[in-house]
Amino acid sequence: MNSPQAPVAESYHAQHSPFGAFASFTAGLVDAPGGFGQSLRRAANQNLYVGFRKSAGQDWQLLPFLTPPKSQETAFTGDDTIVQPPRGFQSLRPENYRRTLGWASDTWRADDTRFGFSLLSPFGPMADPAKLKKAAARFHLAPAITGWIEYDNRTGTTPVELIFGVGNGEDTLRPLGDAHPALAGFAGGGRFGYATKSARDVAVRQGFDVLNPRFRDYHGLHVIAGETGLVFTVPAGRKKRFPLVLGFYAAGPVTSGIDTTYAYTRWFDGLEDVLVHGLAGYRAYEKLAAQRDRELARSRLDADQQFLLAQATHSYLGSSQLLWHKNQPLWVVNEGEYRMINTFDLTVDHLFFELAWHPWAVRNTLDLFVRRYSYRDQHGLSFTHDMGVNDYFTPAGRSSYECDGLEGCFSHMTMEQLLNWVLCATTYAAHTGDRAWLRANQKTLLACATSLRNRDHPDPAQRDGLLKHDTARVGAGAEITTYDSLDVSLGQARNNLYLAVKTLGAWVLLERAFADLGLKKDAAAATATADLLARTLTTKFEADTGFFPAVFEKDNRSRILPAVEGFVYPLFLGYTDATDPAGRFAPLFGQLRQHIGQALRPGVCLDAASGGWKMSSTSTNTWFSKIAIAQHVVRQLFPEVMNAAARAGDRVHADWQRTPGCGLDAMCDQIRSDSGVACGSRYYPRGVTACLWLLE
Amino acid sequence: MNSPQAPVAESYHAQHSPFGAFASFTAGLVDAPGGFGQSLRRAANQNLYVGFRKSAGQDWQLLPFLTPPKSQETAFTGDDTIVQPPRGFQSLRPENYRRTLGWASDTWRADDTRFGFSLLSPFGPMADPAKLKKAAARFHLAPAITGWIEYDNRTGTTPVELIFGVGNGEDTLRPLGDAHPALAGFAGGGRFGYATKSARDVAVRQGFDVLNPRFRDYHGLHVIAGETGLVFTVPAGRKKRFPLVLGFYAAGPVTSGIDTTYAYTRWFDGLEDVLVHGLAGYRAYEKLAAQRDRELARSRLDADQQFLLAQATHSYLGSSQLLWHKNQPLWVVNEGEYRMINTFDLTVDHLFFELAWHPWAVRNTLDLFVRRYSYRDQHGLSFTHDMGVNDYFTPAGRSSYECDGLEGCFSHMTMEQLLNWVLCATTYAAHTGDRAWLRANQKTLLACATSLRNRDHPDPAQRDGLLKHDTARVGAGAEITTYDSLDVSLGQARNNLYLAVKTLGAWVLLERAFADLGLKKDAAAATATADLLARTLTTKFEADTGFFPAVFEKDNRSRILPAVEGFVYPLFLGYTDATDPAGRFAPLFGQLRQHIGQALRPGVCLDAASGGWKMSSTSTNTWFSKIAIAQHVVRQLFPEVMNAAARAGDRVHADWQRTPGCGLDAMCDQIRSDSGVACGSRYYPRGVTACLWLLE
Repeated sequence: MNSPQAPVAESYHAQHSPFGAFASFTAGLVDAPGGFGQSLRRAANQNLYVGFRKSAGQDWQLLPFLTPPKSQETAFTGDDTIVQPPRGFQSLRPENYRRTLGWASDTWRADDTRFGFSLLSPFGPMADPAKLKKAAARFHLAPAITGWIEYDNRTGTTPVELIFGVGNGEDTLRPLGDAHPALAGFAGGGRFGYATKSARDVAVRQGFDVLNPRFRDYHGLHVIAGETGLVFTVPAGRKKRFPLVLGFYAAGPVTSGIDTTYAYTRWFDGLEDVLVHGLAGYRAYEKLAAQRDRELARSRLDADQQFLLAQATHSYLGSSQLLWHKNQPLWVVNEGEYRMINTFDLTVDHLFFELAWHPWAVRNTLDLFVRRYSYRDQHGLSFTHDMGVNDYFTPAGRSSYECDGLEGCFSHMTMEQLLNWVLCATTYAAHTGDRAWLRANQKTLLACATSLRNRDHPDPAQRDGLLKHDTARVGAGAEITTYDSLDVSLGQARNNLYLAVKTLGAWVLLERAFADLGLKKDAAAATATADLLARTLTTKFEADTGFFPAVFEKDNRSRILPAVEGFVYPLFLGYTDATDPAGRFAPLFGQLRQHIGQALRPGVCLDAASGGWKMSSTSTNTWFSKIAIAQHVVRQLFPEVMNAAARAGDRVHADWQRTPGCGLDAMCDQIRSDSGVACGSRYYPRGVTACLWLLE
Repeated sequence: MNSPQAPVAESYHAQHSPFGAFASFTAGLVDAPGGFGQSLRRAANQNLYVGFRKSAGQDWQLLPFLTPPKSQETAFTGDDTIVQPPRGFQSLRPENYRRTLGWASDTWRADDTRFGFSLLSPFGPMADPAKLKKAAARFHLAPAITGWIEYDNRTGTTPVELIFGVGNGEDTLRPLGDAHPALAGFAGGGRFGYATKSARDVAVRQGFDVLNPRFRDYHGLHVIAGETGLVFTVPAGRKKRFPLVLGFYAAGPVTSGIDTTYAYTRWFDGLEDVLVHGLAGYRAYEKLAAQRDRELARSRLDADQQFLLAQATHSYLGSSQLLWHKNQPLWVVNEGEYRMINTFDLTVDHLFFELAWHPWAVRNTLDLFVRRYSYRDQHGLSFTHDMGVNDYFTPAGRSSYECDGLEGCFSHMTMEQLLNWVLCATTYAAHTGDRAWLRANQKTLLACATSLRNRDHPDPAQRDGLLKHDTARVGAGAEITTYDSLDVSLGQARNNLYLAVKTLGAWVLLERAFADLGLKKDAAAATATADLLARTLTTKFEADTGFFPAVFEKDNRSRILPAVEGFVYPLFLGYTDATDPAGRFAPLFGQLRQHIGQALRPGVCLDAASGGWKMSSTSTNTWFSKIAIAQHVVRQLFPEVMNAAARAGDRVHADWQRTPGCGLDAMCDQIRSDSGVACGSRYYPRGVTACLWLLE
C-alpha cells in the first residue's frame, strides 16, 4: 500500500469491542471502511462519516474512514447520468490529525485539537458471570461500546457542525427514533446500531448522499437509502461533547454442536435496550475506560510497548464471546481470522491477561476441555487443539484443526495441548488460590502427569524427561507444536527444545500443585522428573557454538527464542527456586543465558533487515504474541543480554502493527520479520501476552 | 459482458426459492457464483460445484457456477508459495449442456443427457395459513427447495462420480452428519444447508480444495476449510438419481416496526428439521413441481412466453415472505433489489398470480393497508406506496419511499395507491366470492369512492372523471405514478392517460361491488362517474394523429402502451359489458384501438433497435411486468392490431432475460429497450403478470 521508499504514515484498524459479544466496531485504517462487524474474520465494510464543518457553506472535514461511496440512487431512478458520489467533503490526511490509542480508548484530534472523536472499549475486573447480580451483569456484559464527538467552538463566530454516520452500502438502516423517540440514531435490523440522546442540537440524516440529501420524507429522512448520520451543532462560543453508543445484539441460537445463546441476552431484551442502557451508563463507562487508560499511561512501559498492549487488548476483546449453555456461562475466545473456538494454544497465552481481569474464564475453558475435549490415546490423557470453528462445536474429543497422517501444518498437537492443560490448570489454581477446583481436578492432574511421562518413554527406565513419542492419532505422520507454520525448528514436537523447556515448566508447577494437594509422593516424583529433564537439557547444549539446537535430531542448527518460553509460568507465579539463575537449574540457566545472548543478534533471532525479533533463526515467520513472552522472560531472567539492538525491537514491532502491513487487519500475530507484513493470524487476540510487561 | 457482434449465449441466474422464506438458492449465470441467499437484493456469492467425472483419473466436468476459487490454506500456513486454486476440473461451456427452465424446475443436461442436475421450486394452491393443519403447513411452508443429480452409467464400464457442493468463501460450513448421522451434507450455522440421505455411495468432502482435499481429519473432512461437497458414485451399468434438499432457517425476530417471526418457525424447530422433512417429502415435492411444469408446457404459451413466466415465477417466490404477527399470518412480497415491503404498485400486479394460488395473501395485504398504511389528506382516504423497507416496517401512515416537495422519483403516489386498493379489493372479492370481507370493508370502499371523486374536483359540478388534484403531502411538488423512473409521459399523475383509464377500471369494478353489497345508489353513482370519465377521455383523443397524448397537459405528445392497462381488471373478472368493443365504452374502445395499433410500430412503442415493447414512445426505460399486462389486454381486446413486429416481441423480451444484461440479476423489470440491459428493478417479483397469458 506504500512505495518502499516513502515513510509509511500511521494507518491501522483497531477493533472497538464489547466484552464477550464477538463483535467489533472497527475503524482507523486510512482510506478504508470498517464499522459494525458480528463474528467476522476481518473488518466490516461500512463507510464511516466522522468529522466536522466549520460553517454550512464549507466542505466537511472527515476522518479517512471511507472509500468514495457510490450512490444507490441510480438503482431507483434508472438514470445513471445524474448520479455521483457524495461531494462536499475533504478526507483528512494522517498529517491533519493525531490519533492516540489508549488501553480502552482510541481518540482522534484535529483542527488544533478543537475537533475530537473517541471510541471507548472499557474493561475491568469482572466476577464469574454465573454469580453476577443483574445490575453488574448489565454493566459488564452490555454488548455495546461508547464514544464521543466534540468541538471546541469557544473562539468561533459561527456554529460548527459535527457528523457521526454509517453508510451500510447496499443494505439500509432504520431510524431508531420512530419507535424510541429518546434515541437519535440508526440500526441494522435488530443486530447493530448507534445512537445518541435526542436533542434539539442533534439532527438525524438518511439519504443516498448523507452529506447532501436531495430527498426528504415527512421526518426529513429517506429510509430506503443506505447512508445515515447524526449531525450535531455546536454554537459559536461553546464547547460541546456529544455521547455516542454503538451496540450489537444477536438473538437466539448462536452455536451448533453445543447449543448456546449469548450471555447478554439474559439481561438485555434487544438492541434498543442495549442502546438506552449504554447512554444511561455513559459516564460510568467513560470512567472505567479512563481508569484503564491512566493505568497504562502511568506504567513503566514505553510508548511503543503501551501501543502494542493497547492494540492487542482491543483485538482480544473483539474475539471474546461469552455464551450461555444450560444455565451456565460458556466462555469462548475465537481465534481471530480463523475463528477456531478456544484454541488451547491461545488459551495458555491469554492466561495471564484473563487471570488479571476475569480468572473464571480460564477455569470455565479448562472444565470444558476436561468434559468434552479430552481424549485418551495409547499414552494416556490429552486434549484437543480447539473446540470447533466458526460457532460450530466439534464432536467430543475432536478438534476442527487436527488432521491425520501429516507431518506439518494441521497435524495433531497432543503433547502441546497436554502441557497447556497442566500449565493453565496449575497456574489458575496457584494464582487464584482456588484450591477447591484444584482438588476437584486432582485425578485429571495425576492422569496428565502419567500421560506426560508415557510420552517421554513407556518404559520408566528409559526416560530422560523429553517428549519423544507421538500420539497414535497422527498415524504415519508426526505431532507438531503450536508453531505450526514455522519451519521444523519449531514445528516438530518430538525432541523439541521449546516443548522440552515448556515441559520443565509444567513439572515445576505440578510439583507445587501436588504439594498443595498433600500428594507428597507425586510432588517428589515431579521434582525428580523436573530435575532429570533439566539435566537432560544441559546435555543438548552445543559447547562449540554456545547454542541449543531447536530440535535434538538430525543435526538441527536452528536457533529459537521460545527456548525460554517455558519459564514464564514459574516466573509469573513467583516460584523463585525455579527461576533463580543460581538456583536448582543453574547449569541450564547458564546455557540458556548464553543461547539467548547470542540469539539476540542481527541475522540470528533479530531480523537483519528490520531489526524485529524472530522466533527462529531459520524462519522469517515471527509471532508477536510469542515475542512478547520471550521479551518478558529475557528481561526478567537474563536482563544482561538485552543489548541495544534487542531493545530496539519494540519500536519495530509497534511500527509493524501501526502501518497497513498488519494494520489492515487490526492486531496481527504472524508477521514476516523482514517486511513487517502479516502472513497469518490476523484480527487476532493472542497479543495480550504483552500484559506480562506490566509485571516487570 | 459480450461484444455486440458476438451471438450472446444463454446465461442467466434463476432464483430457486421456497414459498414465503424470502430466500433463494440462485444459480445459472455462466461463470458466476450464486448459492444460498437470505433476504438479499441480488445473488449470493458462493461457488457451486456441480458436475461429474467419468473416472477417478479424469478431470471433473463442472457446470459453470463458480469463479476460480482461491484457497484459504495460505492464511493458516503462512506460506503463499504452495497454494493454488482447485485444479482438476473443466468448466462446461453453454454449448456443452442444455438448460431447461420449467415453471417449477430448472434442469441442466450434459454428456449426451447422461448427466442431469435439477433444482425444483414446487408451488401449488394453498389455503390460508391461519387455517392450515400441521402436515399441510409443513408441506407448503417448509423453507426448502429440492433437487436431484443423476448419471446414466448403464453403458459405462467404470464408476462415475457426481458432485454437488458449495464453497462459502471465507466462511466455513459445518458437517450435518456429526449430530444427524442420517444426513449427509453441510450447513452454514443454523441458517442454511444442503443434504442428501447418508448412504454408502455418498461421500462428504470438506477442504480448502474440495476436488483434491490434501488434509483429512478422523472422519475424512477438514472443517476449518470453506469448500464442501457431496460426492456420489454411480457404478458401471447403473443409472442413479440422488435427491437433494436445500434449506433455510431464520429463527427469532425478523422485522422491526411490527414484530414478526417467519411463519415456518411455528412448524419447524430448526434447519435440520427442515432438511429431514425435505428428504422425506422429496417425492411429493417432485410430483408437485412436475405438475406445474406440465401445466405450463401444455399451455398455449410459446417457448419464449413459457420461459418468461417460469423465470418470473422463480423470482416472485424469491421475494415472498410469510411472517407471523400476534398469532396471525402477515404476508409480504419484498420489492426485489429494493426490498420495499408490500409496495402497493406491485401488489396490484401480483394480484392475478396470487388469486390463482394463494388468494388469502391479497386480503392479508389489503387489511394491513387499511389498518396501518392508510391515511387521510385534504381529499380523503388513501394508502401509502409501501409498508417499509428491508424488514423494517415504517410507522403507521408512512411509506419508506415517498418524500416531500418533489416532482419526480420519490414523490407521493396518493392517487395511484388509492386506485390500487380499490382495484385489489374489488377484484379479490369478486374473484373469490368473499362477500363477508367485502361487507366488512364497505365503509372503506365508500370512503375510497369519495376520495377518488374529490381528487377529480372538490366541487361536484366541475368533475370530469379525471384525477387532477394532488395530495397536500407533496407540498410544492407533484404526485407521480408507479412509472416513477420513466419520463413525464408516465411519471406525472395529474391528467395522466394511464391513470385515467385505470380510474375507469376502478369505477367499473366499484359499480359491481356496490351492486353486490346492495348499495344501489352508490352503484348508480359509480356507473355515472365511469361513463363521465369515458366520455371525457374520448375528448382527449387527437383526431389528427390518431393517438391519445400521455398527459392531458402542456401539449404532451408521448405515446404510451399503459393506455389500456386499466382494462385488465374488468377483462380478468369477465365484466364483458365494460370490455365489449361494441359495448358501453365503444367510442373510447375505437380510439384506443387506433392508439395501440399505431403505437405498436417500430420507432413508436416498439424499440427501433431491438424490437422490444416500450412503455412510452419517449423513454427507453421499459418494464417487463407492464409489457406483459399490455400484451394480454391488447391480444384480448384488440387482437387485430397485433402485427408481426408486435408478435416478435416475446422473443426479444425472453432474450433480454436469458442473457447477462438482465440474467445477472435473475428476473429484471426495468430494462433499456434498445440494449436489453436492466437499469433497475432487478431480482424482481413483478414479472408474474405474465400469468395473465394463461387466460388467453
